[in-house]
Amino acid sequence: MAGGISVTSVARLIEEFERLPGIGPRTAQRLTFFLLKAPAEQARALARAVLDMKDNVILCEVCFHISEQPVCGICSSESRDRSKICVVEDSLDVIALDRTGSYHGLYHVLHGAISPVDGIGPEDLKINELMTRLEQNNFSELLLATNPNLEGEATAMYISRLIGERRMLITRLARGLPVGGDLEYADEVTLTRAIEGRREI
Amino acid sequence: MAGGISVTSVARLIEEFERLPGIGPRTAQRLTFFLLKAPAEQARALARAVLDMKDNVILCEVCFHISEQPVCGICSSESRDRSKICVVEDSLDVIALDRTGSYHGLYHVLHGAISPVDGIGPEDLKINELMTRLEQNNFSELLLATNPNLEGEATAMYISRLIGERRMLITRLARGLPVGGDLEYADEVTLTRAIEGRREI
Repeated sequence: MAGGISVTSVARLIEEFERLPGIGPRTAQRLTFFLLKAPAEQARALARAVLDMKDNVILCEVCFHISEQPVCGICSSESRDRSKICVVEDSLDVIALDRTGSYHGLYHVLHGAISPVDGIGPEDLKINELMTRLEQNNFSELLLATNPNLEGEATAMYISRLIGERRMLITRLARGLPVGGDLEYADEVTLTRAIEGRREI
Repeated sequence: MAGGISVTSVARLIEEFERLPGIGPRTAQRLTFFLLKAPAEQARALARAVLDMKDNVILCEVCFHISEQPVCGICSSESRDRSKICVVEDSLDVIALDRTGSYHGLYHVLHGAISPVDGIGPEDLKINELMTRLEQNNFSELLLATNPNLEGEATAMYISRLIGERRMLITRLARGLPVGGDLEYADEVTLTRAIEGRREI
């Protein structure tokens, strides 16, 4: 019983909300009571949206980004630059990068990063599928946009070694100070990377 | 399209989450992708909990607290002190007060507070129903636990005037410094109330 709430279906919804990441007991309670007072259509629309997503969303069979078609909108688009491929850990990364409007190539979603601690090896990721794509296509650039952390670096390193001697530009996203950030709050590693990567103005 | 996400059912769920209070675009996206990866049963359980709540929850016909029965668990309980009645604005207030374990009487939920600015008058609240209860029962104490703000005070004042000369103790919750709070951060009104209500130790 969530917080001593004796109305079963209310307590159950609070519990379900609490299972979502970043939603504490207070927020779960607030969301539940909001929906309790909200028009029935709004509550129904939320429930339907959850079910529809689980029913309809699959992974693109080319790049493994989320999709409602066997091949996703990016892979099937005629306006993308098919000479570039960007490797990311997650579908959310595709969305974040694409929103910038500064990259117009294709993507490949690994669905994770190599992490021995969590028991995730290369075989658990879409790395074999990436290698097949690289063999079958003639990409001029491979952008390894895995996260700038230990696992992401290891994964990028692993992939670049696996590729070896192929004639293709292999790049990583630039490291440095975040725009709008404050120099004095930047950690040492970021500052070091910012100094190493300094550019002439 | 939420943030340029071209997968319709994903974008729709993000939009539905964004309609909930306190959920911004980032959180909506995070929750959606969490559910996308979560087991189908978890997503289904959330959707079902939303629908069940909307289908099953009604208001208690005695006190207007949320309930799944015509008469709620508090009103039908044999262990409550039936000589006391506590008036609150909202069902959440019932839950908060009951969780303290320091009040064992009955409740009456007004479903709002008088607020001329928002066009909410006494006739929009469960005030007539409260008067009927007061007439038909012999309560020894009426605790007016509306919020300690303008609307809550006005509502408490209105109700106490309406009751007039009846022989019944009418009380308000104590005002003062919140426990664990810091004196220097308390606002002037709260401090004034804390001084006025000071007690001998």
